[in-house]
Amino acid sequence: MTLESIKVLLQKKDYTRLKAELVREHHADIAEFINELDPKTSLLVFRLLPKDVAANVFAYLSPESRAQISLQSEETELHEILLDLFFDDKIDFLEEMPANVVKRILRNTTEAERKLINQFLNYPENTAGSLMTIEFVDLKKEMTVAEALEKIRRIAPNRETIYTCYVTDATRYLEGILSLRDLVIASPEQKLEKIMRKKIISVTTLDDKEYVAALIKKYDLISIPVTDTENRLVGIITVDDIVDVIEDENTEDIHKMASIGEIDVNLLEASPLLLTKKRLPWLLILVFVNILSGLGMAIFEETMQAVIALVFFLPLLIDSAGNAGSQSATLMVRALALGEAKIDDWFELLKKEIVVSLVLGFAMALAVSALGFLRGGLDLAIVTALAMATVVLVGSLIGMCLPFLLSKFKLDPATASGPLVTSMADIAGVIIYFSLASWYFGR
Amino acid sequence: MTLESIKVLLQKKDYTRLKAELVREHHADIAEFINELDPKTSLLVFRLLPKDVAANVFAYLSPESRAQISLQSEETELHEILLDLFFDDKIDFLEEMPANVVKRILRNTTEAERKLINQFLNYPENTAGSLMTIEFVDLKKEMTVAEALEKIRRIAPNRETIYTCYVTDATRYLEGILSLRDLVIASPEQKLEKIMRKKIISVTTLDDKEYVAALIKKYDLISIPVTDTENRLVGIITVDDIVDVIEDENTEDIHKMASIGEIDVNLLEASPLLLTKKRLPWLLILVFVNILSGLGMAIFEETMQAVIALVFFLPLLIDSAGNAGSQSATLMVRALALGEAKIDDWFELLKKEIVVSLVLGFAMALAVSALGFLRGGLDLAIVTALAMATVVLVGSLIGMCLPFLLSKFKLDPATASGPLVTSMADIAGVIIYFSLASWYFGR
Repeated sequence: MTLESIKVLLQKKDYTRLKAELVREHHADIAEFINELDPKTSLLVFRLLPKDVAANVFAYLSPESRAQISLQSEETELHEILLDLFFDDKIDFLEEMPANVVKRILRNTTEAERKLINQFLNYPENTAGSLMTIEFVDLKKEMTVAEALEKIRRIAPNRETIYTCYVTDATRYLEGILSLRDLVIASPEQKLEKIMRKKIISVTTLDDKEYVAALIKKYDLISIPVTDTENRLVGIITVDDIVDVIEDENTEDIHKMASIGEIDVNLLEASPLLLTKKRLPWLLILVFVNILSGLGMAIFEETMQAVIALVFFLPLLIDSAGNAGSQSATLMVRALALGEAKIDDWFELLKKEIVVSLVLGFAMALAVSALGFLRGGLDLAIVTALAMATVVLVGSLIGMCLPFLLSKFKLDPATASGPLVTSMADIAGVIIYFSLASWYFGR
Repeated sequence: MTLESIKVLLQKKDYTRLKAELVREHHADIAEFINELDPKTSLLVFRLLPKDVAANVFAYLSPESRAQISLQSEETELHEILLDLFFDDKIDFLEEMPANVVKRILRNTTEAERKLINQFLNYPENTAGSLMTIEFVDLKKEMTVAEALEKIRRIAPNRETIYTCYVTDATRYLEGILSLRDLVIASPEQKLEKIMRKKIISVTTLDDKEYVAALIKKYDLISIPVTDTENRLVGIITVDDIVDVIEDENTEDIHKMASIGEIDVNLLEASPLLLTKKRLPWLLILVFVNILSGLGMAIFEETMQAVIALVFFLPLLIDSAGNAGSQSATLMVRALALGEAKIDDWFELLKKEIVVSLVLGFAMALAVSALGFLRGGLDLAIVTALAMATVVLVGSLIGMCLPFLLSKFKLDPATASGPLVTSMADIAGVIIYFSLASWYFGR
């Protein structure tokens, strides 16, 4: 089924066939179709869906479509959709909605659920608490495997995952975990206590979501339990949500490396105001950093006026320093983010960086000296070659060291962005180049 | 248990206790310990592990440790470890090993397995085929739910996942899928044919692994079936392997955005030669691109000599253009990679970029005009402000358009790296700045 065929059926008002064809599609695809329709039609199509499908599709909709649909829906209709949502999706939705809609929704919930919702809404944005859901399978250690399987069979339709089950005591203290695979393999009369794993990999509600992602990656988990500070089970986080976290963290790092602030929304939906706010601060800071290169040049005004051809090589030299620096900064930032390199490895990496950047500098010096020779003879060839080798070395070392320094001071290494490293390498480049030149020509 | 306590037990030669404590740890943690030990000790510790644990730990070891252990092991010992490895891990391992080790290993396998291994080794590196494993649960549609569960129970220990099961016919044609959840909920006497899902999300062996990752993300899958061109099931890919693919793809993109070639190994293990090879090509290309800024300046030699103060603002202006350009390029490259923006969205994004970069340029022009005024009075203030607003606009538009152009010509948008965009923005910056200045001062 394509968006086109949906539009044709909508035009023909053949809603029976539209509904029949829609329900055959995956929920994620139905949501994608609805996202593409205009607000009025999207509500119409959404209302065609059977109740159980509707809630699943709702969870996949874009925030904009969700807002549209809920603003146009009756209170009771909205209540029914929410009833069938998994708890983490419900919380995500409530976080997106304006306060008056949230109020309207909370009016229709029980006292106990309202309390739970408020508790979940209060977990800070980057924590495990904000990602978890409460629809897990909890079992008791006194149960037999057969009893456990019987319980799972009964509650499975309302659980986000049944593939990992949690054994808790009367006070919700997490005592063990069992995969459905363990249960399926075990003999039916065995007690859970005998087969459950007591060595549990878990996180607490306030753990950072990057830490959660790292554990799920390291141990190849499908889900991870979330406990409070007293090790009582409060929720679980599933791998599909972690996949989204990983992408978000990567996007944040990539943006930061280009001196862009954190942007929470899709680029197409980001307003010009938001984009400006996220881009301007660093651009302005860098303007002021770059003043230093101007000051550096002012010192060498005489040399410059004496050999004006020197200036022609300036962009080339400072860019090369910046480019080499960006490369090393990027390599370090990424290795630190993935845990491939630790802060203690800096010295080993420094030694390697020196070797690499000497070779890079030598090759680039050869290239630039040819140009220098053509433009200003042997003297210029020598000065530009010396300058190139030196600025590439210095630029690379700035790029290499800055992420480690930031890390050392508990700052995010990704702040050592390409533009910042480029600007710092430029200042160094200007000073090195003109110092070398005034020394050489002033002899 | 910590690395320290392992070393203490090793020193005391208390191998019984070491073994007892080790097996209580997660396989991923045991592997991490072994990775940290020197080659001889690591083999000693590895040999302490019970057979079933050893194979699992082996799959988590670093390529270096795996190589160490296999080079030091007897042929029969190695054969036993490999026997217990899942097929995808076995293939990964064989791909890492030198040809003579592979030959030694293949000598100990059956004709049929050797054929299969060779087939898998031949799948190109970036394809679904290179990621898949063959340990899946396959069922027949004539089975009842009870029969299926009985089969799963029997084969579960040797299957990578049992949570999605595949229904195939006698010719291995993929007819339907069933989650273990579906099976657990269904009544035991039901035929699989009645409950299996026939709408299957699958990939073929030669599909790109990025495409596989996109499907797993979109549909929140735990595993995905891989078929040949005739829709016969040949393997499955599980979400834990896809998490690694996502990180690798992100690393590749991040490196590319800093003009670094693809590096397959951990930064600490990368040789200086490899790093040089991956960094030098773009650095050299950019040297030649930057010659153009030098040529641009040569044209304006007179203006420059007349008002030497102009030169002091050059690094600042061209860096600002480059920084703004890097920002927009990064935003576009990431949005294209995530599928947030499509090639058809370019015009909408262009309009937004013009608005944003005008505002950015205006703010930065204000900042630079103050500096210009201090350095060279009103004239210089006006020229630098005009130049800043223009170069930021042009730099941003270069950064914004380049990724779309590359996409349009089926090239990777990430090639529009920070360094490349910076260099292009610099050339534009030099020409714009000095044109404006010679026009203004030449009046």
